[in-house]
Amino acid sequence: MTQHQETVFVVSAHSADFVWRAGGAIALYHQKGYRVRVLCLSYGERGESAKLWKQGKTLEEIKAKREAEARKAAEILGAEVRFFDVGDYPLHPTKELQDAIVQEFREHRPKFILTHSLEDPYNADHPRVTNFVLECRILAQAEGYPSDHAIIGAPPVFLFEPHQPEQCDFKIQAFLDITPVFELKRQAMECMEAQEHLWEYYTAVAKRRGSQAVRNGGDKSIVYAEAYQRIYPTVGSELV
Amino acid sequence: MTQHQETVFVVSAHSADFVWRAGGAIALYHQKGYRVRVLCLSYGERGESAKLWKQGKTLEEIKAKREAEARKAAEILGAEVRFFDVGDYPLHPTKELQDAIVQEFREHRPKFILTHSLEDPYNADHPRVTNFVLECRILAQAEGYPSDHAIIGAPPVFLFEPHQPEQCDFKIQAFLDITPVFELKRQAMECMEAQEHLWEYYTAVAKRRGSQAVRNGGDKSIVYAEAYQRIYPTVGSELV
Amino acid sequence: MTQHQETVFVVSAHSADFVWRAGGAIALYHQKGYRVRVLCLSYGERGESAKLWKQGKTLEEIKAKREAEARKAAEILGAEVRFFDVGDYPLHPTKELQDAIVQEFREHRPKFILTHSLEDPYNADHPRVTNFVLECRILAQAEGYPSDHAIIGAPPVFLFEPHQPEQCDFKIQAFLDITPVFELKRQAMECMEAQEHLWEYYTAVAKRRGSQAVRNGGDKSIVYAEAYQRIYPTVGSELV
Amino acid sequence: MTQHQETVFVVSAHSADFVWRAGGAIALYHQKGYRVRVLCLSYGERGESAKLWKQGKTLEEIKAKREAEARKAAEILGAEVRFFDVGDYPLHPTKELQDAIVQEFREHRPKFILTHSLEDPYNADHPRVTNFVLECRILAQAEGYPSDHAIIGAPPVFLFEPHQPEQCDFKIQAFLDITPVFELKRQAMECMEAQEHLWEYYTAVAKRRGSQAVRNGGDKSIVYAEAYQRIYPTVGSELV
Amino acid sequence: MTQHQETVFVVSAHSADFVWRAGGAIALYHQKGYRVRVLCLSYGERGESAKLWKQGKTLEEIKAKREAEARKAAEILGAEVRFFDVGDYPLHPTKELQDAIVQEFREHRPKFILTHSLEDPYNADHPRVTNFVLECRILAQAEGYPSDHAIIGAPPVFLFEPHQPEQCDFKIQAFLDITPVFELKRQAMECMEAQEHLWEYYTAVAKRRGSQAVRNGGDKSIVYAEAYQRIYPTVGSELV
Amino acid sequence: MTQHQETVFVVSAHSADFVWRAGGAIALYHQKGYRVRVLCLSYGERGESAKLWKQGKTLEEIKAKREAEARKAAEILGAEVRFFDVGDYPLHPTKELQDAIVQEFREHRPKFILTHSLEDPYNADHPRVTNFVLECRILAQAEGYPSDHAIIGAPPVFLFEPHQPEQCDFKIQAFLDITPVFELKRQAMECMEAQEHLWEYYTAVAKRRGSQAVRNGGDKSIVYAEAYQRIYPTVGSELV
Repeated sequence: MTQHQETVFVVSAHSADFVWRAGGAIALYHQKGYRVRVLCLSYGERGESAKLWKQGKTLEEIKAKREAEARKAAEILGAEVRFFDVGDYPLHPTKELQDAIVQEFREHRPKFILTHSLEDPYNADHPRVTNFVLECRILAQAEGYPSDHAIIGAPPVFLFEPHQPEQCDFKIQAFLDITPVFELKRQAMECMEAQEHLWEYYTAVAKRRGSQAVRNGGDKSIVYAEAYQRIYPTVGSELV
Repeated sequence: MTQHQETVFVVSAHSADFVWRAGGAIALYHQKGYRVRVLCLSYGERGESAKLWKQGKTLEEIKAKREAEARKAAEILGAEVRFFDVGDYPLHPTKELQDAIVQEFREHRPKFILTHSLEDPYNADHPRVTNFVLECRILAQAEGYPSDHAIIGAPPVFLFEPHQPEQCDFKIQAFLDITPVFELKRQAMECMEAQEHLWEYYTAVAKRRGSQAVRNGGDKSIVYAEAYQRIYPTVGSELV
Repeated sequence: MTQHQETVFVVSAHSADFVWRAGGAIALYHQKGYRVRVLCLSYGERGESAKLWKQGKTLEEIKAKREAEARKAAEILGAEVRFFDVGDYPLHPTKELQDAIVQEFREHRPKFILTHSLEDPYNADHPRVTNFVLECRILAQAEGYPSDHAIIGAPPVFLFEPHQPEQCDFKIQAFLDITPVFELKRQAMECMEAQEHLWEYYTAVAKRRGSQAVRNGGDKSIVYAEAYQRIYPTVGSELV
Repeated sequence: MTQHQETVFVVSAHSADFVWRAGGAIALYHQKGYRVRVLCLSYGERGESAKLWKQGKTLEEIKAKREAEARKAAEILGAEVRFFDVGDYPLHPTKELQDAIVQEFREHRPKFILTHSLEDPYNADHPRVTNFVLECRILAQAEGYPSDHAIIGAPPVFLFEPHQPEQCDFKIQAFLDITPVFELKRQAMECMEAQEHLWEYYTAVAKRRGSQAVRNGGDKSIVYAEAYQRIYPTVGSELV
Repeated sequence: MTQHQETVFVVSAHSADFVWRAGGAIALYHQKGYRVRVLCLSYGERGESAKLWKQGKTLEEIKAKREAEARKAAEILGAEVRFFDVGDYPLHPTKELQDAIVQEFREHRPKFILTHSLEDPYNADHPRVTNFVLECRILAQAEGYPSDHAIIGAPPVFLFEPHQPEQCDFKIQAFLDITPVFELKRQAMECMEAQEHLWEYYTAVAKRRGSQAVRNGGDKSIVYAEAYQRIYPTVGSELV
Repeated sequence: MTQHQETVFVVSAHSADFVWRAGGAIALYHQKGYRVRVLCLSYGERGESAKLWKQGKTLEEIKAKREAEARKAAEILGAEVRFFDVGDYPLHPTKELQDAIVQEFREHRPKFILTHSLEDPYNADHPRVTNFVLECRILAQAEGYPSDHAIIGAPPVFLFEPHQPEQCDFKIQAFLDITPVFELKRQAMECMEAQEHLWEYYTAVAKRRGSQAVRNGGDKSIVYAEAYQRIYPTVGSELV
């Protein structure tokens, strides 16, 4: 197969989300030969950097630190990363951001897109980004939307697992086996020095999802998995 | 691939359901080399044979006629068919039927199972069968359930499209391209002489689902499709 | 219009339900010239006769008392009533009861059917009856179901308001103006001597629903209303 | 009855939506003697004019073409049409548009309002318009909202069928028989030259809904129907 | 217990909402020794002052009258009240309002927060305020949100009962016994001279909720109650 | 407080469920001075004893082993346990079992009841038991249900966490801090020798729920928690 030029997109509200929630998928698809492009809309500088604020860092220092960490994590996972710095808590996507994301989709033509859940009563930025991404994808499909690039087809969208899935009405529709790349995900997580308490937490999540993946018919070799919800139906000549 | 001995199961409340709702999948998987095993729990003799009753046929004549039609349709599609004759309208699965279905699953080890929707305010037999099938699958997984055959793993279950999907809260999660086999599905539908009004109806449904499949990213060559809802998450090392 | 012979059905789990929940509809349709047929599956002798048990009455005395009260209420409202005495708490519809109800529908051909809500965490008999009634209606539509009477069409089904509607996920889709007949409903309620505490309660419910009916575009003259949920779509050449 | 001056409103995100989704209702209510007023918020110039863009037309040419087509279709159906040209993909209702729609409702006092569905993962403009219309109706009811016209009552709102109803969680609550006017709807659809692929598609939809309407108790003469979801409860002295 | 300095927050879209929907909770918590702080985002001057507009009052007169009434009601209930005057119908929270509410939460550290329901098809301001309040609470928890005050923990949020709870998908999760303070709530309601029709309505609501509270295991002495929906799980070392 | 005679009930479909899902609550309430009564409807001999079947044990041996383990676990947690041996996979509650449970509730008057979730596509016994328990509670409230004991009030019902909560639509409404008793829960889990793979799994679950409990406002000392869903509203004179 010559899928090597194809691009997988990950749209992350804050600069670390892509690591906790989709680090395994990123590493896995990188290893499969895909280009993985992570779009960090903000650095999570206000909402997800408590430790740094407590250390007395300035806003600019925090953003720099968060960017550096995210770059390092992306490198480990094999992803390109682009930062948009639109601010967080609250994160309000602008018209300019919308166009930038549409052009990203037009230019790089996503094989599929990973982003946040549709609901999250603990985090208003996340579902706002999800809805924003869904609309950017729709605009990128429209012949009349101005661009130097051709329209895209209908790439699947997968939602990654929020921190408290039951309260976000998160419905698991796919377990992705990330066992072969888990070590990379762990290393990437450890780049996030300000959120050390989450390393173990998301390792335990991956293990639990791995165990459930086996229970749902997966190979007994699966140890670690990530859970995803699918927005659009699959299409093809196979059901499984 | 040597999937050729693997078996696909279709559990049909009435003897014609498998044709309208899953005829494409059956023909397709037969062509892929799978064994397809259709279990008809009843003949639909009371609830879905209005034309025959109006012709003054007796119950036994109707059952014989419906069986003959279903056998012919199954043959066209490439499926084996087994009839259980438990009666319909209402269809109440018995303890004996439960054991028979569990043993079927144990012996033939389904690659996946197709059956009815979870709700249907127009047809009480359908969701009752769905819940029954889900429980039979669970029993077939239990080490302590008595059988000459080994336990099964966790085969996926797909629900086929009911007659009025919106009122049945049917959620489409997979479009299956049945274009290459649609001619066979049409021929199989035409075996159901008592339900001639449905031939055109389900041809139009297949065309509409085909058109939607393309819209959801399917190949532009898709003309006919069947829609399915999935009960359990997918598991694997690919998302798409 | 010559709708005068048409029959409206009310299926009531316990002998008083039809009064609290549909007394207004019954009186109204009686006045419109319809025949209204109330089917009381049980007397509510165990579950809804606390006061009589505390008075030391026997089961037979309670059933007799409940029947007498229900007959009197039905007379005031203008309804016929038939008792099936299948027992309550728990109320388990039998095969014989099912046939009896199907034959009722076949013989009297309901213009529409009123019954309980789909859920009720405070009362297990109610939703069990609802599902039972929906299935009887389906069976009455089937050409092959044995009967001396012709099959019926597709009569609408309306669910009446449960005691705690929010917890029963009751969705209001129709407000019925019962202002002109409310006095009769009140009189009928007062026949239920064992449940005196409910007279005021359901008068207040009727007033609240009346006030909401006005708010939803009803005539300002509406003072009392009953709320209903609809199971099947309306059909016709008018939307309002 | 002298309902002849009463006005039915159709609020359409893009200039062709009213034809595919409510063309039958429009023609029918026009024939009943109602004034039907269609408000096209945009021309669908960017999102629903792919064929014209591929022909190399400019934005202004496309808008002109879409307006001309919509005018012609409206004329065939018997509707007045007003264009607001707020742009599409994305369609963001402005404060000025809001006031304009409120004043429309105040001046013409809708008998009922038809608009889009509450959800649509394939089209972000549609649900945004639905929520916008619901709010305009609320504002038009408020005594304190500035206007030369009196407040309105509580006109019913019906949602018309989206392109992929199951994925939009569209719940059918009313089938409208459009058989007598279907020929006009077809002619109106054929005005939309840029969307020829949809003529057959929506003819098949109308036929399928017609078949389902009969199944739900409609007259056997029904061949074509449109499906609607209702937002607010009905109110009146009849249930059916 | 020395909870006396703790503050309960009530965020009210319009100046009278806090009285009808949470007047009992306010009086009760005031009597328990809590400080109760009511934030009225608007006066409800356009949307909920019909009677005053009909009397020919000006906008400023109406606002003044509504403020005076609300102040009087708050005083009776024992609450402090702050008005933000951002306008209603439509009520669009501004960036400035957001900061003001975040600072309120930071400074006064809510024990819990009461606000509107998540849905309301009759009132667009209410759910918009609910979502706004939930986001302000999240921002107040963020270390990086600029403020002179320390971050807050995770105060519970309760939604008070909307006017037509079933249509707002309002789920009751807590009945609060307001019997001991109902007389105060009634007096506070009577301050709202422009909405006299609601005094009896909400007295009947309180009585109905009281009766249901007893039915759900409450003390038989309960006569009046208020119903609340909870957004976040409870946490503690007791289940009941 | 003299709550010491009050009884907490745990109804467990299979003999080990009470340990994994409610072991913390049991130990905690035992320590608070409550009597905790565990009702094991079956031994889980067929569905949840795979390891024992693989060892070649007979049905009777397995039941004996499971009973011994459950007794030992109950003893560690401080609970009484009663076995009903109605069989599992499938578990069909009989009329006799229903009466036995109703009499249990009547005699011991539950402070509250813990049982399974409302849905579980992986386990048909669990939701069947939940619905059965809810109905037994309703019957125990009915004055007319025959018994030597007085009727009960309206004890709260809490559902414990199923194995795959997202797929069971499990909604967390309460986190119970089980930190002080977790060591006992771990010891009780270790009694279940046949399900060793679950010891670590449910320790991780408890840790995750503990972490979430803190995030939802719980004391920072919480390390382990259990999650519960509530069926009926709370009632009282406090919201938190």
